[in-house]
Amino acid sequence: MISRVRNVVNSVMGGLAALPQPPERPQPDDLELKYPYCRPEFLQLSQDEIQVSADHVSRPIMVPREPNRLPWSAGYAEVINAGKSPRNEDQAATTQLSISRPARTPNRNTNKANNKGNNGNSGEDNLQQEAMAEETEEMDELHFTYFGVFDGHAGTGAAIMASRTLHYHIRDKMAEVSELLLPVTYEDQNHPGTGSNHGSGSGKPSSKVITKEHLIIGALERSFCEMDSQIERERLTFRITGGCTALVAVFVLGKLFLVNAGDSRAVLCRNGEAIPMSRDFTPESERQRLQYLAHLHPHLLYNEFTALEFPRRLHKTDLGKQTLYRDHTMTGWAPKTVTEDDLKFPLIFGEGKRCRVLATIGVTRGFGDHDLRVYDSHCLIKPFLTAAPEIQTYDMMEQRFGEDDFLIMASDGLWDVVANQDACNVVLDALTQFHPQDPNRYTSAAQELVMHARGTLQGKGWRRPAEDKPASGDDITAFIIPMYHYGNQHLSSPTLLSESEESSTREMETETEAEADPRPDSLDP
Amino acid sequence: MISRVRNVVNSVMGGLAALPQPPERPQPDDLELKYPYCRPEFLQLSQDEIQVSADHVSRPIMVPREPNRLPWSAGYAEVINAGKSPRNEDQAATTQLSISRPARTPNRNTNKANNKGNNGNSGEDNLQQEAMAEETEEMDELHFTYFGVFDGHAGTGAAIMASRTLHYHIRDKMAEVSELLLPVTYEDQNHPGTGSNHGSGSGKPSSKVITKEHLIIGALERSFCEMDSQIERERLTFRITGGCTALVAVFVLGKLFLVNAGDSRAVLCRNGEAIPMSRDFTPESERQRLQYLAHLHPHLLYNEFTALEFPRRLHKTDLGKQTLYRDHTMTGWAPKTVTEDDLKFPLIFGEGKRCRVLATIGVTRGFGDHDLRVYDSHCLIKPFLTAAPEIQTYDMMEQRFGEDDFLIMASDGLWDVVANQDACNVVLDALTQFHPQDPNRYTSAAQELVMHARGTLQGKGWRRPAEDKPASGDDITAFIIPMYHYGNQHLSSPTLLSESEESSTREMETETEAEADPRPDSLDP
Repeated sequence: MISRVRNVVNSVMGGLAALPQPPERPQPDDLELKYPYCRPEFLQLSQDEIQVSADHVSRPIMVPREPNRLPWSAGYAEVINAGKSPRNEDQAATTQLSISRPARTPNRNTNKANNKGNNGNSGEDNLQQEAMAEETEEMDELHFTYFGVFDGHAGTGAAIMASRTLHYHIRDKMAEVSELLLPVTYEDQNHPGTGSNHGSGSGKPSSKVITKEHLIIGALERSFCEMDSQIERERLTFRITGGCTALVAVFVLGKLFLVNAGDSRAVLCRNGEAIPMSRDFTPESERQRLQYLAHLHPHLLYNEFTALEFPRRLHKTDLGKQTLYRDHTMTGWAPKTVTEDDLKFPLIFGEGKRCRVLATIGVTRGFGDHDLRVYDSHCLIKPFLTAAPEIQTYDMMEQRFGEDDFLIMASDGLWDVVANQDACNVVLDALTQFHPQDPNRYTSAAQELVMHARGTLQGKGWRRPAEDKPASGDDITAFIIPMYHYGNQHLSSPTLLSESEESSTREMETETEAEADPRPDSLDP
Repeated sequence: MISRVRNVVNSVMGGLAALPQPPERPQPDDLELKYPYCRPEFLQLSQDEIQVSADHVSRPIMVPREPNRLPWSAGYAEVINAGKSPRNEDQAATTQLSISRPARTPNRNTNKANNKGNNGNSGEDNLQQEAMAEETEEMDELHFTYFGVFDGHAGTGAAIMASRTLHYHIRDKMAEVSELLLPVTYEDQNHPGTGSNHGSGSGKPSSKVITKEHLIIGALERSFCEMDSQIERERLTFRITGGCTALVAVFVLGKLFLVNAGDSRAVLCRNGEAIPMSRDFTPESERQRLQYLAHLHPHLLYNEFTALEFPRRLHKTDLGKQTLYRDHTMTGWAPKTVTEDDLKFPLIFGEGKRCRVLATIGVTRGFGDHDLRVYDSHCLIKPFLTAAPEIQTYDMMEQRFGEDDFLIMASDGLWDVVANQDACNVVLDALTQFHPQDPNRYTSAAQELVMHARGTLQGKGWRRPAEDKPASGDDITAFIIPMYHYGNQHLSSPTLLSESEESSTREMETETEAEADPRPDSLDP
């Protein structure tokens, strides 16, 4: 991501050192890097190749050397920006992991998840492990496949850390509810949350019905918050620069969970039609949430900003005149008389890609940025950001997918210049040139898609010659994930299919009768 | 609305007197009623008839004596509840109003809106006024047609007041932007909000594009807040009991604006298909907003409630055990260990129609309730409620409507027992029995619909014999608004049509170039 944060120091890695820091905190430059700069491990790039990939003039498109290192031979391609930051601040990860139930598996670590994933670094081991997993298939294991795109800003630290660790947080959070996820009778006495008949002493007790899907969503939500908390803690002992968005796809229990915190985007292409699978979170789309926070906690504006939005920046000459405005309750505009307070800089200002929170940041969800402040001010940005994702689910069992149905997950570098349907069309065109079983099929399509957005260097800048339009100067990252593998895998595996059926039909609870209200003045409706 | 507020004193009119009040406030019973109890004026009910309409055993369905008192001979029907409150706490209103531009109309009150509406109380005058309006049709007037449904709780005062005054607030808020709404060149110097080139001294100034639709939405939003503020102020000098939801339809500038604060619902039936035109606001649908507020302002819970949601009420015996929970960031559920704090009563508790905020109220948006407190506590409910509506717009010019296309606006008494499509089907069936020009057509359909939901009294209670299901014991109010009148009116009036075209295509501003960021560390993206 470029220009999301106004680069105080453009040599980004240590950029935040220029901002005022709380005195008790060690300066980031005093600390060791948590992780050295890298590209996704499944690309298998040498240090020399990493150097070459960062050429802002040639902007080479990087693809995996061995496409079947990725689950289902999914496609991947990336390209660096046109010079706005010295390094590619996007990151990506994919892996396959599993969790198991402690009580039924005495030979495994008790209540601990097993990592059977490749995370891109185990070469042919990946396929071996997949085979192993199939051999040991049993009711007490839950496998999931994970893809993540992380778009960094103001440094590469947060994105690298997220690409290295978020999937473990997801595994661990799922493992915490493994007894509920795996097909066993849920033991009420240890989990009053889904239990029943606990001595309330107030008549008929009851409990909400909570499905496995609810539990997966909860685990994904908690893992995003835990990822951000880890960065917050470890930035005190390591140098973890900047922040990043996060877009994650998890295939589990017969469903696809699209988890989004930021403005990367997932688009499903089914029967040639583009179906959005995530919503972009930007200062514009999140205006009312941010204004509501500022309304409730005005001290977060440090008396330097106004929570109201105006059609343009107001100035002293506007005092006493009429303007239009909108606050956190409004989507329309209404008139007001301009006061001194309205001359402060607006919390949300600018349009489209130039719209920023507190004049500083162009993205509102993700990880990191804990020390980011408004330039030349103590005003912290982080309270306005959130790691909490929005999650969309898609039932993979409801229909059969073909070999030309796929999921695109890409950073905003792609979507800034390519519409959803156009992206699908570019991929569909590329897919026709390969046999469905060719392991290079989806990687070549990813390469085509990234090339389509990057365009070619023509005199003054990068352009897309086919449409004669400006191309993307941002970092671009794209996965093309075939959809039929996961569906087929489930259809051929009765065990997994029955699990997935349970997840949508079997409820954790059967009691539905409403609890008699224990408050003294209760009235039946 | 029944059982939305747990009735401390079931003889509702003065019910709130039993709750703790701030000492400086006069007791409601000491004050005069703002308005006496009434039914909508277009029903033309005598005091005796009002008495009869309140019979909880026969539950007579009331319809307008003269259907053409309502705009477009729209249909209306209502019925009282089955005994849960002594009076019908629903209210309704409809009117046609206009605003004019002061500068161009010297013979009219300067900058003041004209009320040409009937609000149901001017008999044949209504049609005369409509005719007059057509004779004086000119560019400097803006006509709008208004329908409102208000579902009261814990008293009738707020709903009556809203039904009597909300349309004037809407007219006044629109009049405040009449210079922008009416087809004149906008004068930049008085309205910097939509102006341009005001001396910013910082390079290229610019302004957001604000359409007439934005301005109508802003006026509607502000009018809802103003309505609530009026109740807040006037409750100090008048007795204005309870609270109410508000669902409003405004036809103006070729568009339909559906404005909703509560759980009444608007459904458009077009070509026989039910299209939802509003979303219900309930403690369940607004859980995250309410939890977020409690998270940011925990003092609002008075140490008596917990902001977290659990699958059931927790008790001392659960301490130290695992439960599931969700907070304001979550839609899924995750595990936690039960602590003392978790034993407090949850901010949101119950399921479906029994779900309440702070164990007290089952609705989260609307007017009034300023003094409502948790039973036997100082904990105020109002901070969790909002008058801010959600607005959906529908372009009436994009398609032709037929005589069987209509809008249903009804209180939750209807929707609790009738699904959207079923309601449309009941109305469609009823419409077939009348000539399209019969003024009783839509009123008879409204009567059928309300009867369908009310059912018949059978031994133990009200049931719908056709489906052998329980009927609604709540107050039920329903408008059936034909859609073709407004469309036809516009299609036959070039003046109004051109206005409506402007509203969607002509922008208040033409400048779109982004402003150079005046902050010192600005970087171009």
